[in-house]
Amino acid sequence: MKGDHRAGEGGTQCTVLWTEGQGEKEKGQAGGPRARQRPHALWRLLDCSGDMVGLDTYVQERPFALQLVVWFLRGVSRVILANNPLSGALILAALLWASPWQGVLGTVGVLASMLTAILIGQDGAEVTAGLHGYNGMLVSLLMGVFSSAGDWYWWLLLPACLGAAACTFLYSGLSPVLDRWDLPVAVFPFNIVIVLYLLVTRPDNPYFPHYPSLPVGALQANATELNTAQLLQGIFLGVGQIFACDSLGPSLLILGATLLYSPLQALHAVLGSAAGTLAGLSVAVRHGSLYSGLSGFNGALGCMCVGGLFFTFSWRSHLFAIATAFLCSYVDIAFSNLLGTIGLPACSWAATLVVTLMLLLTGRGLAAYRIPVGQVRSPEHNLSSRSQWKAGNTLDPDSTVV
Amino acid sequence: MKGDHRAGEGGTQCTVLWTEGQGEKEKGQAGGPRARQRPHALWRLLDCSGDMVGLDTYVQERPFALQLVVWFLRGVSRVILANNPLSGALILAALLWASPWQGVLGTVGVLASMLTAILIGQDGAEVTAGLHGYNGMLVSLLMGVFSSAGDWYWWLLLPACLGAAACTFLYSGLSPVLDRWDLPVAVFPFNIVIVLYLLVTRPDNPYFPHYPSLPVGALQANATELNTAQLLQGIFLGVGQIFACDSLGPSLLILGATLLYSPLQALHAVLGSAAGTLAGLSVAVRHGSLYSGLSGFNGALGCMCVGGLFFTFSWRSHLFAIATAFLCSYVDIAFSNLLGTIGLPACSWAATLVVTLMLLLTGRGLAAYRIPVGQVRSPEHNLSSRSQWKAGNTLDPDSTVV
Amino acid sequence: MKGDHRAGEGGTQCTVLWTEGQGEKEKGQAGGPRARQRPHALWRLLDCSGDMVGLDTYVQERPFALQLVVWFLRGVSRVILANNPLSGALILAALLWASPWQGVLGTVGVLASMLTAILIGQDGAEVTAGLHGYNGMLVSLLMGVFSSAGDWYWWLLLPACLGAAACTFLYSGLSPVLDRWDLPVAVFPFNIVIVLYLLVTRPDNPYFPHYPSLPVGALQANATELNTAQLLQGIFLGVGQIFACDSLGPSLLILGATLLYSPLQALHAVLGSAAGTLAGLSVAVRHGSLYSGLSGFNGALGCMCVGGLFFTFSWRSHLFAIATAFLCSYVDIAFSNLLGTIGLPACSWAATLVVTLMLLLTGRGLAAYRIPVGQVRSPEHNLSSRSQWKAGNTLDPDSTVV
Repeated sequence: MKGDHRAGEGGTQCTVLWTEGQGEKEKGQAGGPRARQRPHALWRLLDCSGDMVGLDTYVQERPFALQLVVWFLRGVSRVILANNPLSGALILAALLWASPWQGVLGTVGVLASMLTAILIGQDGAEVTAGLHGYNGMLVSLLMGVFSSAGDWYWWLLLPACLGAAACTFLYSGLSPVLDRWDLPVAVFPFNIVIVLYLLVTRPDNPYFPHYPSLPVGALQANATELNTAQLLQGIFLGVGQIFACDSLGPSLLILGATLLYSPLQALHAVLGSAAGTLAGLSVAVRHGSLYSGLSGFNGALGCMCVGGLFFTFSWRSHLFAIATAFLCSYVDIAFSNLLGTIGLPACSWAATLVVTLMLLLTGRGLAAYRIPVGQVRSPEHNLSSRSQWKAGNTLDPDSTVV
Repeated sequence: MKGDHRAGEGGTQCTVLWTEGQGEKEKGQAGGPRARQRPHALWRLLDCSGDMVGLDTYVQERPFALQLVVWFLRGVSRVILANNPLSGALILAALLWASPWQGVLGTVGVLASMLTAILIGQDGAEVTAGLHGYNGMLVSLLMGVFSSAGDWYWWLLLPACLGAAACTFLYSGLSPVLDRWDLPVAVFPFNIVIVLYLLVTRPDNPYFPHYPSLPVGALQANATELNTAQLLQGIFLGVGQIFACDSLGPSLLILGATLLYSPLQALHAVLGSAAGTLAGLSVAVRHGSLYSGLSGFNGALGCMCVGGLFFTFSWRSHLFAIATAFLCSYVDIAFSNLLGTIGLPACSWAATLVVTLMLLLTGRGLAAYRIPVGQVRSPEHNLSSRSQWKAGNTLDPDSTVV
Repeated sequence: MKGDHRAGEGGTQCTVLWTEGQGEKEKGQAGGPRARQRPHALWRLLDCSGDMVGLDTYVQERPFALQLVVWFLRGVSRVILANNPLSGALILAALLWASPWQGVLGTVGVLASMLTAILIGQDGAEVTAGLHGYNGMLVSLLMGVFSSAGDWYWWLLLPACLGAAACTFLYSGLSPVLDRWDLPVAVFPFNIVIVLYLLVTRPDNPYFPHYPSLPVGALQANATELNTAQLLQGIFLGVGQIFACDSLGPSLLILGATLLYSPLQALHAVLGSAAGTLAGLSVAVRHGSLYSGLSGFNGALGCMCVGGLFFTFSWRSHLFAIATAFLCSYVDIAFSNLLGTIGLPACSWAATLVVTLMLLLTGRGLAAYRIPVGQVRSPEHNLSSRSQWKAGNTLDPDSTVV
């Protein structure tokens, strides 16, 4: 296990750039000097997984353009709850593979969002950690997917930039409210902005027309037998649907990017997507929704958040993660049926709200595993920090779970 | 008055099991030893009304099954804002009388909710006080009422259990948020879960079909003269509608259960239901809604909460209670018209939101009578605690209103 | 500049009656004695602009009826974010000019709201500052505008009074929640109450019928060329639409009332309305919405709040104000399209929510200019307080921006 190996080193990689503020001061002390002492190839590979905190120290002395690329790629990986520039690069490749236009839109979204954050004077640590990028990326990707004006409709970059900028405003405004209960802002800004955009530009808008959404529970005219192969494929497409991508190859590449960040997270993504498909079957949603992975992606998001990311991995939090996946999926079906009546998609409202609920739970069964939002790292790192802490090893002070 | 009598005894019954945490430690000191010293029949009857805190001490040394029954019955009575196992038993009898299938569903709902609470490690004091039962009960009752698959459709137990479990999750997650303003979680979980359930399973669902709801303001095809007798009957049915019960006999039995807990509460229930009927008349809602008591039950809930339960009873809080009943009823009509456009019922959203608003009021006229949520008991007990406290009698330290 | 002049006097007018509580005690010390020493005509005119705090000291020794009139007129001016009895009088004149019936309704709304506030024991300083009037006024004005029963339908006074009273309840209940983040209650109560009223009384209600609203994005049957003159007129009508007034003369008078309170505020009102019209053009809303000023008034409200009122005026907050105006307008179009599907108007939900968001922003670019809600005065006064404070002149302790 990667985590155990690190723990043995005495916590040299404890620089958490994206914990707001706190991580900054510790960077110079611990992370920097030893991070480049590792000679072996295996260790180098391990350095490429997890949060890659060593990289931040490395690029700090490099040109600004390189730093910007790292921030940008972290922002891309944040969508799938990772924080790893290499994962971000893989995901970007997957998007460009699926549709070059979508890749361009996503890139513009992240950049517009990050630039706005710098302009309105957001905390620098938040920007470098890519926290002001993923919402903007999702907004511009979804604008592209729903647009009925076809690919390479350049005017779409205008609302994409404005929407991404609005996400940064919402992120900045929502954080003091959610901070009271130590909750992450998550993808609330994306969900709000995309719904507002689709409402502003109704399907028949002369400048920015878009496809209306259909409730997933709508009766199917000529329902056929379930196709098991397509159903299984839908589970993997569910991971890609987090980026509104519905081709198998790119979806698997995105899953690979998650695997690079954290095997535990990739496992939960697939489990969650499968749970979502089961939930969809149990209430007879449209087959198209199951095949395309739309039934699964909320489950995948919920499962990843609870199983290892915001809670230390254990058999208990694992069970809770599966329960969360089912809950997310049912709530998603409800939202899809509700918003579908006025032609709106359910986006990831379900996962966002249910995960927020799980983070608020007071029952000892789950709350005992809760990791403060400012100390969240990759699931494997969270796990090893906790074992260390339990063993009375307090050499790694920033990862103790209070 | 029962309350004055108790006050004279020096507050022997001051054990508040369901105030989270605080009540626990005081139990052994005050409540236990003297509660069983009362010899007379009248006193025994009085012991059966109010919060019956003596019973908790009694069953503590009895088998677990008996304790479970007491917790269960407290949970049932919580729906009507009571906390009395005998009231719970009467209500269960009323439900079984109205429809055995509904009685079974309600029982399953309470048990599923309580079991989930124990599984996720909720506070023991909350479970024993029945706080993790009433939301689950309401969800399963309403699922049964809206189901168009007929009685004894056993598959319905599946969503009933899941919905009741989801209520416990919501209860646990909402409490830290509402605690900031000392607000009760009330029936928010029920209202959220039942709306989501009805959205997930649209009316034409192949497995769990249900009847769609109609806006109460919808124009009536052939409106007839108002029937005064039916209107009066509707006022009493309004109390039964809190349990989704629309037969007169069981409704009166439920009113009797409230009377057993607290005469003041029963009075306010009827007053509130009457106010709701008047409000319905003033904006010409469908006659069916008036006759069935659906116009009245939100008013009844709001009136009970403000008139004596969360506020000490006085002529002022009494007037506020009636104002609340009207406000609840109008808001309920608005919600019914809003949600009815997509076939959803308004449930008790109106009462829940309006009572939450009243609890937040800062005006001295009402806020002066506010009782901290952790110290709420039966209206009569609240009243006597306050008189005692006003008289400088501080023998009953846990009921002082700070 | 008026502000500089005042600053030179050493802050004699620092009595802020409507900062809750704090202002009270300082009144006797600073404001009173010197306020009547000014002999010159110019100074007298200046005394009539801004918050007119000297007047409060003046009327304190006068009959109660006169005090009530001042409170009432402050309440009227609050709608347009001013706090000046003379502005209030001008606005009332404008409303009576546009439609006497609307003037009567507005007056009744303010009075019902204020009376309720006194009855439920709200803080006296809030009442004297007119904080419990503007929501009630807006509710009754909008009830009149939407009513399809014609002018002088006296029964409408009943819901107008009840709605205005409900506003006071909502104001009182929302303030402890919003206070946690130092947010103003703003027009949340009005927006909630008017939507509920229109939902309770559907368009075809036999007692209180009203016109349904249309989504602004609805396709126009026979769209014609844009009329530039009408478009320009629409910008000024946007200021009047804050009071649901759509005639040019009264709208200009209302703009004049804003100018009297603060030239900066009037400038931002026009700028915001223009931004709203541009936003409407960019997504092709109905021409009627542009011509009537309905597209502009949310932008005007948002622009006024950010540009000088809740943030010290500077080129930065000025840019933010224009961004806010665009954001408000787009959100307003979205809400109008959403609520229009069920025949409801978007009211000023957009401006209220977006301004709340801007007040929550944590980015240093804007947050540095934030003025605590309790210390907000007229933009010019805010500006001079800040210059003084920056210059190290601490003679005016209550206007320091912490």
